[in-house]
Amino acid sequence: MDKQISERVVERLPKYYRYLQELSKNQIQRVSSKTISKALNITASQVRQDLSQFGGFGQTGVGYNVEYLRDIMKDILGITTVHTAIVIGGGRIGQALISYKGFKDENVFVKAVFDVYTDHLNSFTGVEVLNVSELESYLSKNPTDIAIISVQKEQAEQVAKKVVELGVKSIWNFAPIDLYFDGVVCENINMSESLMRLIYKSKI
Amino acid sequence: MDKQISERVVERLPKYYRYLQELSKNQIQRVSSKTISKALNITASQVRQDLSQFGGFGQTGVGYNVEYLRDIMKDILGITTVHTAIVIGGGRIGQALISYKGFKDENVFVKAVFDVYTDHLNSFTGVEVLNVSELESYLSKNPTDIAIISVQKEQAEQVAKKVVELGVKSIWNFAPIDLYFDGVVCENINMSESLMRLIYKSKI
Repeated sequence: MDKQISERVVERLPKYYRYLQELSKNQIQRVSSKTISKALNITASQVRQDLSQFGGFGQTGVGYNVEYLRDIMKDILGITTVHTAIVIGGGRIGQALISYKGFKDENVFVKAVFDVYTDHLNSFTGVEVLNVSELESYLSKNPTDIAIISVQKEQAEQVAKKVVELGVKSIWNFAPIDLYFDGVVCENINMSESLMRLIYKSKI
Repeated sequence: MDKQISERVVERLPKYYRYLQELSKNQIQRVSSKTISKALNITASQVRQDLSQFGGFGQTGVGYNVEYLRDIMKDILGITTVHTAIVIGGGRIGQALISYKGFKDENVFVKAVFDVYTDHLNSFTGVEVLNVSELESYLSKNPTDIAIISVQKEQAEQVAKKVVELGVKSIWNFAPIDLYFDGVVCENINMSESLMRLIYKSKI
């Protein structure tokens, strides 16, 4: 599937995948657009329109084939491929990320964690614990798909710039500053902005 | 300001606020839509359109008054008001949240953390550490604005339903499942979806 999918649909794509995966785990074989709509808080007509973009066509009275649609989505999302990752910044968020169970489901493998101080990270197994000064030599020997940034705001831009120069093409950023680089994919998880939206929406 | 602001603008509102706050801290008094545009990766015409909605009008060759605009936004966002919060789930993400520095900037005060086991949380100061069985009695005595959910996926919906029944009107959810309740504002931080979007965008 080469055609461009709009950004708004990309926002919803993981929701569909996650829900279909859930249904599949529960041995459910068919699902209607109405049921999906209710579960995901998306209108049924939007669901039908979105899914038809991915080649998913529901049959009246029968609905969509759960596994078929899930496999298409898994493939579109690219999570059938293995990706390597490193975490930079071993503070509380960094540590939560190293232990994050979702990576396995998405075929992402965290290979190393970098920090200025590393003693507090030695209890983590299955991941190399390295001083941030070793970042350059590590990346030159171990080409890495995703850099996960969980350093302080003040260091984030510099650290990201460095990994980009060293060839990393995807950045998952948890520092409270939005990162953008030409030719690099950045997903910014900005907790502070999310909290502001929550407060704003609670007010009106 | 009572007029309805569109959801897309609400998404950008915190970005403007955060950037203006930054400029203000650095003693910068005036800023052009072009500079804002570059910093936030939003087109300059979009910036002008958004800001005019909040009563911010730039002058040609002079730009916007940073403090004036920041104060308007702070007020629109509602972060001039103090909000109380509790964290439910004291795992790694919950602990990262208790220590999250951004709360102070947004006038949010975390008063208590709840978990099934609480021994590992006793080193946190300034926050009450309580067993989850005490949630009901706590909320009946301490009306709370925001419940921050960082329990496992399997418990998230039940826990959220409980706090909603007990009068909480805003939920900030970190469990990997989207929560929606009528009459309740929910902001879902879904790491798994963000990671999928990153992988998807890296593929194309």
